[in-house]
Amino acid sequence: MKNFVSAADVADIDSLVQSALAYKADPLKDKLLGANKRVGMLFLNPSMRTRLSTQIAAQNLGAEAIVFNVDKEGWALEFEEEAIMSGNTVEHVKDAAPIMGKYFDILCIRTFPSLQNKEDDYSELYINQFIKYSGIPVVSLESATLHPLQSLTDIITMTEVLGKTARKPKVVLSWAPHVKALPQCVANSFSQWVNAWGKADFVITHPEDYELDTKFTRGATITHTQDEALKDADFVYVKNWSTYTDYGKIYNNDPEWMLTNEKMKATNNAKVMHCLPVRRNVELSDEILDGASSIVTQEASNRVWAAQAVLADLLRGKK
Amino acid sequence: MKNFVSAADVADIDSLVQSALAYKADPLKDKLLGANKRVGMLFLNPSMRTRLSTQIAAQNLGAEAIVFNVDKEGWALEFEEEAIMSGNTVEHVKDAAPIMGKYFDILCIRTFPSLQNKEDDYSELYINQFIKYSGIPVVSLESATLHPLQSLTDIITMTEVLGKTARKPKVVLSWAPHVKALPQCVANSFSQWVNAWGKADFVITHPEDYELDTKFTRGATITHTQDEALKDADFVYVKNWSTYTDYGKIYNNDPEWMLTNEKMKATNNAKVMHCLPVRRNVELSDEILDGASSIVTQEASNRVWAAQAVLADLLRGKK
Amino acid sequence: MKNFVSAADVADIDSLVQSALAYKADPLKDKLLGANKRVGMLFLNPSMRTRLSTQIAAQNLGAEAIVFNVDKEGWALEFEEEAIMSGNTVEHVKDAAPIMGKYFDILCIRTFPSLQNKEDDYSELYINQFIKYSGIPVVSLESATLHPLQSLTDIITMTEVLGKTARKPKVVLSWAPHVKALPQCVANSFSQWVNAWGKADFVITHPEDYELDTKFTRGATITHTQDEALKDADFVYVKNWSTYTDYGKIYNNDPEWMLTNEKMKATNNAKVMHCLPVRRNVELSDEILDGASSIVTQEASNRVWAAQAVLADLLRGKK
Repeated sequence: MKNFVSAADVADIDSLVQSALAYKADPLKDKLLGANKRVGMLFLNPSMRTRLSTQIAAQNLGAEAIVFNVDKEGWALEFEEEAIMSGNTVEHVKDAAPIMGKYFDILCIRTFPSLQNKEDDYSELYINQFIKYSGIPVVSLESATLHPLQSLTDIITMTEVLGKTARKPKVVLSWAPHVKALPQCVANSFSQWVNAWGKADFVITHPEDYELDTKFTRGATITHTQDEALKDADFVYVKNWSTYTDYGKIYNNDPEWMLTNEKMKATNNAKVMHCLPVRRNVELSDEILDGASSIVTQEASNRVWAAQAVLADLLRGKK
Repeated sequence: MKNFVSAADVADIDSLVQSALAYKADPLKDKLLGANKRVGMLFLNPSMRTRLSTQIAAQNLGAEAIVFNVDKEGWALEFEEEAIMSGNTVEHVKDAAPIMGKYFDILCIRTFPSLQNKEDDYSELYINQFIKYSGIPVVSLESATLHPLQSLTDIITMTEVLGKTARKPKVVLSWAPHVKALPQCVANSFSQWVNAWGKADFVITHPEDYELDTKFTRGATITHTQDEALKDADFVYVKNWSTYTDYGKIYNNDPEWMLTNEKMKATNNAKVMHCLPVRRNVELSDEILDGASSIVTQEASNRVWAAQAVLADLLRGKK
Repeated sequence: MKNFVSAADVADIDSLVQSALAYKADPLKDKLLGANKRVGMLFLNPSMRTRLSTQIAAQNLGAEAIVFNVDKEGWALEFEEEAIMSGNTVEHVKDAAPIMGKYFDILCIRTFPSLQNKEDDYSELYINQFIKYSGIPVVSLESATLHPLQSLTDIITMTEVLGKTARKPKVVLSWAPHVKALPQCVANSFSQWVNAWGKADFVITHPEDYELDTKFTRGATITHTQDEALKDADFVYVKNWSTYTDYGKIYNNDPEWMLTNEKMKATNNAKVMHCLPVRRNVELSDEILDGASSIVTQEASNRVWAAQAVLADLLRGKK
């Protein structure tokens, strides 16, 4: 693995999942792997779970993590080639990234989409410029269109829940209402990873006009009828996203799309997943989140092991 | 000790004071106690001494401290049960706290009062929700109504100054003017701890209308005459607070309440204390702060040992 | 060395340069020097390279670095003696600095000039107050008028490029256009250090009205003709600064002052330096920054070794 920004960077998802579960069983088993290695964590946007779990993962491997909130502790970066920097951006990624490459062994970056311009966001300019110019392995802490550490965690958590079950689970990604226009990252990424994993019957359900980019969803069954999707589901992944086609809009915010215990009766005692943060009683109800079907805490705590498996793989590659 | 949010959490204050003084004499004597333990430090509000001293205390114990400025690096949390989160809050403490409980061994939290609604603030909803949902020991880095690490430090510092003196000291908490409406935390907490300590003649003096909650002050002598309070005092603890009864107001800001060397003549060569930060020449004069009676630097430097004693006790409990 | 805020603090620049280059060759050779020592890093202003390189330098020496963004994680400090603090400042440096002196072994501080009042800025009140009241060695992470870690890095980098050449190089500091009024710090500091180093023919070129303080430039040749300055240059240090005489203004922003490959033909295959961040195609062109003459990445990566040499010297002094 050279970088970790997409499922496409991972040759063998199952092997990475097993590595993560081994760290969960014995967090300090590779305490010397990261000795005298340095992990830079650059945030262009807020983060809680991703930030903390990645710091902890680095510590578990004996590596030094250094956090830098670029937007708050530094200044605005420029990403466009040949920019004449007479505006608000203070430093070009072409100058900043090579230095990060000298200071760190692995560079982790969070950078959200603008939701203003689809072409710009979907070009993943920001993270790609860091890859191009830093010269060291880059780990996405969520980028404009994908959130691979979250998706790896999701696969780890489903693997854990399934245990030794041989049966192919039915996995449903179900759109949910929200008050803000959110990125498609988590939905895109979950779709990409579940498809690449190849071990589930995968159904995506959302209102009309919320179609995701087919390059991520291809292989999944897509329906606008939530009830139909939920039938016999083993896992229901709940998430809001804004429109992709007419980019970054809220077309329909029907509260009927919020999951309820009543709707869950159609499932196969499904487990409910969410990447968090979640708007309670808007995106997902108290009754679901506080009930027995929710595995969101397990999922979030697995973030540590996902990050640790990824950092370990990259550190091993550097030896 | 299960949590550290109030004097009521401490079975034996003197024993905790002695533990702190032992760390002051030999900071690294328990360098292995915190090995592979993780202390999360969550800030919903600014902090300097509390932040730095707690980080240092964790390091002295060999534990990993991770700081997270929730308000700046993350997003606004919701604390009300059954909230419909269609407003500004992005994540519920019911979802965030259990994850902190998975990531960390001890959770430290700073959360100020709003000073808008007495019932809300005095219910200590924020820190209580973290205790309820995190499942790990919680340490207050100052909450809506109390600041126990400061108060423990204050007792440590008085114990140090008293040395082997057998005499019961006269301790005076004296209200001081300020330009802003401040919380009652430090005054409440100092009162609670000095009363629980039980080793002082304790007098509180403030202008009319600045009565504190009697659940903290009960046991102290209260007077509106500062001169009378200062007579023969051994320690004068200076602090501003806003009104408690008609909540969060400034009723009287009489500069005559500022301590002076002239007023200090009535004391028994008293030592002057303050939690800091202090507004010089508003709350406390240069002549006092720069004079021989001030022990505010000693007090602030003892913050490290107070935090170290508390973290050590909680880490021992976890073994 | 007692503090590190100016070239005047360094008895032997060459020896410090050699110490830095020795760390570059073997970063962990003094991994035990900083054991159980604590480096406080206080930021009153943003920072990227200085922040990260100093953290890394401390780690390489086995010391604990603690970062505190005073402006964002704490509150506004007061620096004026005898201030009546009824305004926006919350804590006086007279109270904060002695505590930092108790918490840390070395105190590093970044504090920018206001560019409003020359006398205030050039008195270096802020950093001098920290020196006066902290009681421990103070390292400037850039102050109102100087940036010594940058200048040491610049000397290190020129020494590296020169290698075993016996010839005295021609070093040119060339003013460049910018969109904002910037401090004179880097230009002052580079001038002070190159003069103190004494191993170069030093020429400063800038438009009329951009004269720097002669206490830093004395010894250098100053010309308003850039072409003349560039002739046979071995190093061209590019940097914008605002006016010093009529303080903090932009008098002339002639884009003709931007360096080009065409202009570089007059030099002796000079290497181009800049402290970064740089406004591309305003202050310095893509063709220069992306070309073979630029050594800005090498320069920025040397920041680690400069900081490490300085911290090591101060830590040795503390033993």
